[in-house]
Amino acid sequence: MDIVKENGPITGEQIADRLHLTRSTLRPDLAILTMAGYLDARPRVGYFYSGKKTGQAISDTMTKWKVKDFQSVPVVIQEHISVYDAICQLFLEDVGSMFVVNKSGILTGVVSRKDLLRISIGNQDLNKMPVHMMMTRMPNITVCHKEDSLLSAAQLLMDRQIDSLPVVKRRDDGLEVVGRVTKTTITRAFLALADEHDI
Amino acid sequence: MDIVKENGPITGEQIADRLHLTRSTLRPDLAILTMAGYLDARPRVGYFYSGKKTGQAISDTMTKWKVKDFQSVPVVIQEHISVYDAICQLFLEDVGSMFVVNKSGILTGVVSRKDLLRISIGNQDLNKMPVHMMMTRMPNITVCHKEDSLLSAAQLLMDRQIDSLPVVKRRDDGLEVVGRVTKTTITRAFLALADEHDI
Repeated sequence: MDIVKENGPITGEQIADRLHLTRSTLRPDLAILTMAGYLDARPRVGYFYSGKKTGQAISDTMTKWKVKDFQSVPVVIQEHISVYDAICQLFLEDVGSMFVVNKSGILTGVVSRKDLLRISIGNQDLNKMPVHMMMTRMPNITVCHKEDSLLSAAQLLMDRQIDSLPVVKRRDDGLEVVGRVTKTTITRAFLALADEHDI
Repeated sequence: MDIVKENGPITGEQIADRLHLTRSTLRPDLAILTMAGYLDARPRVGYFYSGKKTGQAISDTMTKWKVKDFQSVPVVIQEHISVYDAICQLFLEDVGSMFVVNKSGILTGVVSRKDLLRISIGNQDLNKMPVHMMMTRMPNITVCHKEDSLLSAAQLLMDRQIDSLPVVKRRDDGLEVVGRVTKTTITRAFLALADEHDI
């Protein structure tokens, strides 16, 4: 495969030479690689790399994809803002969850559409209540890291029955939010998988 | 592959016999199938089918999966119930969207967490407002069908930027809701893909 990738089009004879094999020894292997679509063969021209991403490559892709390849920009709010302002921010950014940070930019909480809906049907004054009063607090927040596999992040979303995961970076004073992974992220990856492999 | 599947463990000699080939002609093919993990070989026992689903099978799986293979149970509400009751139902069922039907059970609207949050921060009396006053109405609802590919449903969720799709069945008087596809559904499929193929 490597020889053909670098030198194609190349004849079976030439490939055999480079591998110190006879043409007939090599023939079945080339036949299988051609049938499987890894190589293309043209009479009197030789073999060339088809460029087709193969089925096997899909599982490679799934294994290799990391959180950092798909994460989106996190929406971050300060913990002292009001619940009302948080709801406005949610609509403005059109996201399902926001991450709450303290003055040093360290993750302290998460608020979701569901949390905000629950509080807004209570009889509270949403303008007077700070968001940190009703957020889900650390350490009850499930996080992931840039280098985690996207698969493990998807598994966390399902296992914990949550809508989003903050992607965090460890700092001396706590966790900094650097990204966001949601079920939208995973849906995008599912489509990318099909797209990259011409399904 | 078929011979080994049906008769394994079977020796290379026996496979060659059945194909009217010599053992040496067959050797490279068996070597490749073994290296690729399609077949397992055990000395003095023979070849047997590894049972491993191959990479190629992943794209087959993705192509074959239909909405009906993954859809979940829809949460359906009547259009005359109050917004307040709709919100309670949403929390009770713990879903992101609900489908609204008329007395004949025909789809007339959709309400999402986002819609309900928007209405609940207004100054309306949620107990007095019927849900049909604020729902997204037909024909502005994107739907899918049981036999659609899961990929096309995922594409719709992304293209229309929506959280859920009702799976519908056509009736003389309109569309009946028979299922639900969400980004959670697609995340589940993404994980099932990896799981089924031992990634």
